Amino acid sequence: MDIPRVQTLLAVARGDRPADMLFKNGRVVNTLSHEFEDASVAVADGVIAGLGDYEAREVIDLKGLFLAPALIDGHIHIESSLLSPAEFARAVVPRGTGAVVCDPHEIANVCGEAGIQYMLDATEGLPLDVFVMLPSCVPATHMETAGAELDAASLKPFLTHPRVLGIAEVMNFPGVVFGAEPVLDKIALGDGRPVDGHAPGVRGRWLNAYAASGIASDHESTTLEEAQEKLRRGMFVFIREGSTARNLEALLPLVTPQNSHRFAFVSDDRHADDLASEGHVNAILARAVAKGLDPLLALAMATSHTAAIFGRKDIGALAPGRRANLIAFEDLKSFRAVKVWHDGRLVAENGSLIGDVPLYHSPAVHATVNVPSLAAADFAVPASGKQANIIDIIPDQIVTNRWTASLPVSNGEWQADGTQDIAKLVVIERHGRNGNIGKGFVRGLGLKRGALASTVAHDSHNLICAGMNDSDMLFAARTLAEKGGGWVVAADGKVLAHLALPIAGLMSDQSASVVTETIEKLHRAA
Amino acid sequence: MDIPRVQTLLAVARGDRPADMLFKNGRVVNTLSHEFEDASVAVADGVIAGLGDYEAREVIDLKGLFLAPALIDGHIHIESSLLSPAEFARAVVPRGTGAVVCDPHEIANVCGEAGIQYMLDATEGLPLDVFVMLPSCVPATHMETAGAELDAASLKPFLTHPRVLGIAEVMNFPGVVFGAEPVLDKIALGDGRPVDGHAPGVRGRWLNAYAASGIASDHESTTLEEAQEKLRRGMFVFIREGSTARNLEALLPLVTPQNSHRFAFVSDDRHADDLASEGHVNAILARAVAKGLDPLLALAMATSHTAAIFGRKDIGALAPGRRANLIAFEDLKSFRAVKVWHDGRLVAENGSLIGDVPLYHSPAVHATVNVPSLAAADFAVPASGKQANIIDIIPDQIVTNRWTASLPVSNGEWQADGTQDIAKLVVIERHGRNGNIGKGFVRGLGLKRGALASTVAHDSHNLICAGMNDSDMLFAARTLAEKGGGWVVAADGKVLAHLALPIAGLMSDQSASVVTETIEKLHRAA
Repeated sequence: MDIPRVQTLLAVARGDRPADMLFKNGRVVNTLSHEFEDASVAVADGVIAGLGDYEAREVIDLKGLFLAPALIDGHIHIESSLLSPAEFARAVVPRGTGAVVCDPHEIANVCGEAGIQYMLDATEGLPLDVFVMLPSCVPATHMETAGAELDAASLKPFLTHPRVLGIAEVMNFPGVVFGAEPVLDKIALGDGRPVDGHAPGVRGRWLNAYAASGIASDHESTTLEEAQEKLRRGMFVFIREGSTARNLEALLPLVTPQNSHRFAFVSDDRHADDLASEGHVNAILARAVAKGLDPLLALAMATSHTAAIFGRKDIGALAPGRRANLIAFEDLKSFRAVKVWHDGRLVAENGSLIGDVPLYHSPAVHATVNVPSLAAADFAVPASGKQANIIDIIPDQIVTNRWTASLPVSNGEWQADGTQDIAKLVVIERHGRNGNIGKGFVRGLGLKRGALASTVAHDSHNLICAGMNDSDMLFAARTLAEKGGGWVVAADGKVLAHLALPIAGLMSDQSASVVTETIEKLHRAA
Repeated sequence: MDIPRVQTLLAVARGDRPADMLFKNGRVVNTLSHEFEDASVAVADGVIAGLGDYEAREVIDLKGLFLAPALIDGHIHIESSLLSPAEFARAVVPRGTGAVVCDPHEIANVCGEAGIQYMLDATEGLPLDVFVMLPSCVPATHMETAGAELDAASLKPFLTHPRVLGIAEVMNFPGVVFGAEPVLDKIALGDGRPVDGHAPGVRGRWLNAYAASGIASDHESTTLEEAQEKLRRGMFVFIREGSTARNLEALLPLVTPQNSHRFAFVSDDRHADDLASEGHVNAILARAVAKGLDPLLALAMATSHTAAIFGRKDIGALAPGRRANLIAFEDLKSFRAVKVWHDGRLVAENGSLIGDVPLYHSPAVHATVNVPSLAAADFAVPASGKQANIIDIIPDQIVTNRWTASLPVSNGEWQADGTQDIAKLVVIERHGRNGNIGKGFVRGLGLKRGALASTVAHDSHNLICAGMNDSDMLFAARTLAEKGGGWVVAADGKVLAHLALPIAGLMSDQSASVVTETIEKLHRAA
């Protein structure tokens, strides 16, 4: 704040000027002193001036509602919602989310610096603080071609942006543990700023090394013992409860009043449909309290503790000098936000955003599907040997098994086989870098005919296509190439369902409800 | 740490290189997970590499002692110990103190920028981290002439120093509350760094304003209610237990497991003799635990919580990547350090420092007593009216009353009067700026004859002299002017006792034991 703004704030605080707003008759959730306070809250110029009785131009009678700092998600990939940042905000703000710490890992793997810049530009002026951690793993692997390579030098210029907080989850944990210089360079870039971790299953000496490197947090623990060891070794434990990975129930017993400030809640990945049906941080709070966590501790973890972990002194608490990012809610069970304010402005009421959130358009992240001109022959897999290698999907798991099977042969080429639930799978490099096409077979998709294709394929997000015959696959892949990315289900040369994801081939430019409906259509079609 | 150092640390952590040291058979105090752990601790190059079993060049058998992070004093004026920084370190390190956050307010009021620079230079390479908060109140008042004036622009260059953490206690709370620009400029200089407060008795709307300004902490609460209000308004509460102000007993009931991370322990002012007889942070811990605080919480407050409040990620916890600033102690009652390590080096054992701490000499902070040539006539107070104004000392209080009395008159001048316990008091500007001499009378010093003089006189530290006759006063004042500052007791033209404080007229260049003995002599002589 510049000095004249501070002077105005102080004049309001000491009672020499009327406040802009006074919140009365609320139960103030004080996450710092750990208590509920019956006090009025005065706001001036979007900032909390003081608690107590004040004159104000506008009095908001909360009629006994709880008044708390807006909720914070400590780690999320917005791209995984399939929503543009604006539509993401429209989905989460009415749920009481005031800030998210995002890692634009997906879009950076497609668009490089332009992807990070897009996320910063597209989140400017939203009724939601979108803080950015700089993606540390572009590319995520050297076994596939990503759209960009970002070393420490490419990330450095972004550090001066006021909403860039630090370095995002360092996924290459063997690189950290064995001291690979490019990885350590990125950690060193943090230079006192937060550096997030990602160390699934890392324990013992490897965990010592990972923590010693300066990485401060981890959100990959799936068992109590793993999270406990990370807590003991000085890492902040981010309890993840997302659309796919859900660790709250396993990790919650670790939280005590004495150590709760070492924890944050994060969603990591949260799909549009789950945001619509379940909610966001509010849903995590509801679940945590249902599992027995003290509601005040839960609220502190989702507000002041997370703010402190990320070094933000402007949000996360209901105290003088903090921004008036506030939520009013009825009970300590559902945490359903009745009203939401951002910088003192009412931005959501009864589950709906107030006002418009214009979509930000940037050519730099459009037309990102650059594949070579494709022919059916490109997908041919010559039969060699007796058995073909098969990727075997394990239900509800991210990891897969390797397996072999006999496949029908036609024209000297192996073919998909519906009787064994085996489809052909191709990955087409779509970043215009080498046009590589990887080919193989996969078991367990449940396809009978036609093809599926997607430009969302972690972490390099190439064009991935599975199908029962080469011509449907070719059609599906060409469709996505023409439309600039998305998801498609095709059969017999026709599109059965299609979700356009024109923003980097990852995000829709449509509303959350359109995206959710289209996803349902895709599921039915598939 | 540079990359090769990190790589070495990681090699030790993952077990590919032997550690330098392994601490075995200790009860590890884990202030982050809030528990005691039976684990070995490996150290490489002064940094904790990991917990667990490791090969090491040197094994330290702790034989069941507790092993904890070294203690941190969150706010102290080193000058008040009367010791040089080196001798201060010698006094506190064997007590288990590993870091202090100091405000060189006193020396800056005498020497300005040179005083701050001296404190930074004189603390380089000590077996103690001396962090510096930049003094925000030089001068502390415009009613007296200090040695310097430091505005925001003069402080700014110091912010790049690696041990400068932020802005020290902003004592001018009316200036803050009423938005005085020079004061707000200094707060703004903090720019995300810690800004400490000093707001005795400030409550209600004024406290809202003080907190809204961005000041983050306060150490001046004397009652539970005052501290509670500051805690609620988002300020860190520093519980002060010093030589003069002792607030631990009053404030301790406010600490709960849920809010303890909002507290730190500080000593503010701690005299050499108290450091010798009572100790330092260890003594505060002992008292807190005797008053019922959970020893683990007490240790967390004196280590990790304070480190977090000041944004230091390198100290305050026993975890991989943190510096090996460690203490081993026998029990959770006295917290008496048996051994102390700094950056993995054994620096104290059984109450004594190991090795030498050379005194740092800087001409810039010597010869700071610059007074005009004095004559007895300079001290004359012409008798005018019937009664003289008297400063009335209230026992054990910092504040004084104003009072009037009839005094004996000689040569048309008022004289001191032993029968009423009234001495003459003069304050001689000693910074060579205007040579002003303020004159008056004081009741309650208990002087019978002779004179006392001192160059330690908060906050401007002019030459202050009290006495029963002008010639002894002149002699005492001249003595200090000649000797470059200190404390003196004189009578009948003779020095009865003298403590030389050649460093800025505030600090001794002698050992703590010499200073303590000399102070006793002065007390007896007075």
